[in-house]
Amino acid sequence: MEVRDRITEEATKLFFQYGIRSITMDQIAVSLGISKRTVYETFKDKTELIQTCLKALIRKRDERSMEITSSSSNVIEAIFTSMHDGIKALNTINPLFFHDLKKYYPVIWKTVHEENKIKNYNLTYTQLRKGVNEGLFRKDIHIGIVSKLFHEQINLVADENVFPRDQYDFTELFRNLIINFVRGISTPKGIDVVEKMLEG
Amino acid sequence: MEVRDRITEEATKLFFQYGIRSITMDQIAVSLGISKRTVYETFKDKTELIQTCLKALIRKRDERSMEITSSSSNVIEAIFTSMHDGIKALNTINPLFFHDLKKYYPVIWKTVHEENKIKNYNLTYTQLRKGVNEGLFRKDIHIGIVSKLFHEQINLVADENVFPRDQYDFTELFRNLIINFVRGISTPKGIDVVEKMLEG
Repeated sequence: MEVRDRITEEATKLFFQYGIRSITMDQIAVSLGISKRTVYETFKDKTELIQTCLKALIRKRDERSMEITSSSSNVIEAIFTSMHDGIKALNTINPLFFHDLKKYYPVIWKTVHEENKIKNYNLTYTQLRKGVNEGLFRKDIHIGIVSKLFHEQINLVADENVFPRDQYDFTELFRNLIINFVRGISTPKGIDVVEKMLEG
Repeated sequence: MEVRDRITEEATKLFFQYGIRSITMDQIAVSLGISKRTVYETFKDKTELIQTCLKALIRKRDERSMEITSSSSNVIEAIFTSMHDGIKALNTINPLFFHDLKKYYPVIWKTVHEENKIKNYNLTYTQLRKGVNEGLFRKDIHIGIVSKLFHEQINLVADENVFPRDQYDFTELFRNLIINFVRGISTPKGIDVVEKMLEG
């Protein structure tokens, strides 16, 4: 692996574990057994490093998203698999990671957030339309509105002010959000798929 | 009717129609055919008048809420009736009313908003528990989380930044939010009630 990728990977791991603020370029170098100079020759500063980490994360997530789409036998299965991925991720990442990003790197946060917003909205829109075509979701739903409501709810779950992490469990939050949401827009055929997914 | 109540009622009507900022104490007096002095003898200033209007509105809404609860034959019917009330209200009130309240009377807005938040959350919580007891909602829902998600979604619908009024129709928004939400947490028996409500 190239040194650039090694640094990005290690930094991401440390940021996820301890948050962004408490991790220095020095610590990343020590953790990899390389010199601080090498780190600074590769990345101008911490901001550039963070941007690179986020770009890599987004690329990975997009790849995973395509993988889920192609390996799922229907759109409900794809939504549930994404849900399990999301729960796993949020349960492993230290909340400080998001907190620090928002507070100390607001420009990066905003860019990522806006990009995500559009991407997630489009993904949901596509999934809902597919679900309607597959006969799993009801024809009378307004796909635009429902996509937006779904996407905004996901944001709520990630919002510490609405659901403080020490009071709510992510697994339970996502189950109550996503399973009820999918049931709510499903045809009887869709509800059968949900039941089977929940049993399995 | 006492002059105090007459002023409150007329002011509310005018605020709903034209927003708060553009309506003066003078106009309210003219509209009622009374002197400006009478208005100022009854209310110290516009802020006090607005507070009185909002208190009256909240009292009316609470009464209506109890009326709905007692006249509905089940909790799903109660939710749907509240939904129709909400749509009707939002379609009649000029968006400027909320806009002006938020912008020019932020303290009043915040107090009302916070009170509403707790009240709505408690109402939803009670309704959901009732629905579970009536066998209409599934036993496996987490009532606390679902109440919160529901309440936050209602706020989203009222948020101009998320759903601009010129692009989204309230009737369609509420239908897609509330009907899907209720279906999502319903048992088969609950879904039957939903279907019957939609036919009728």
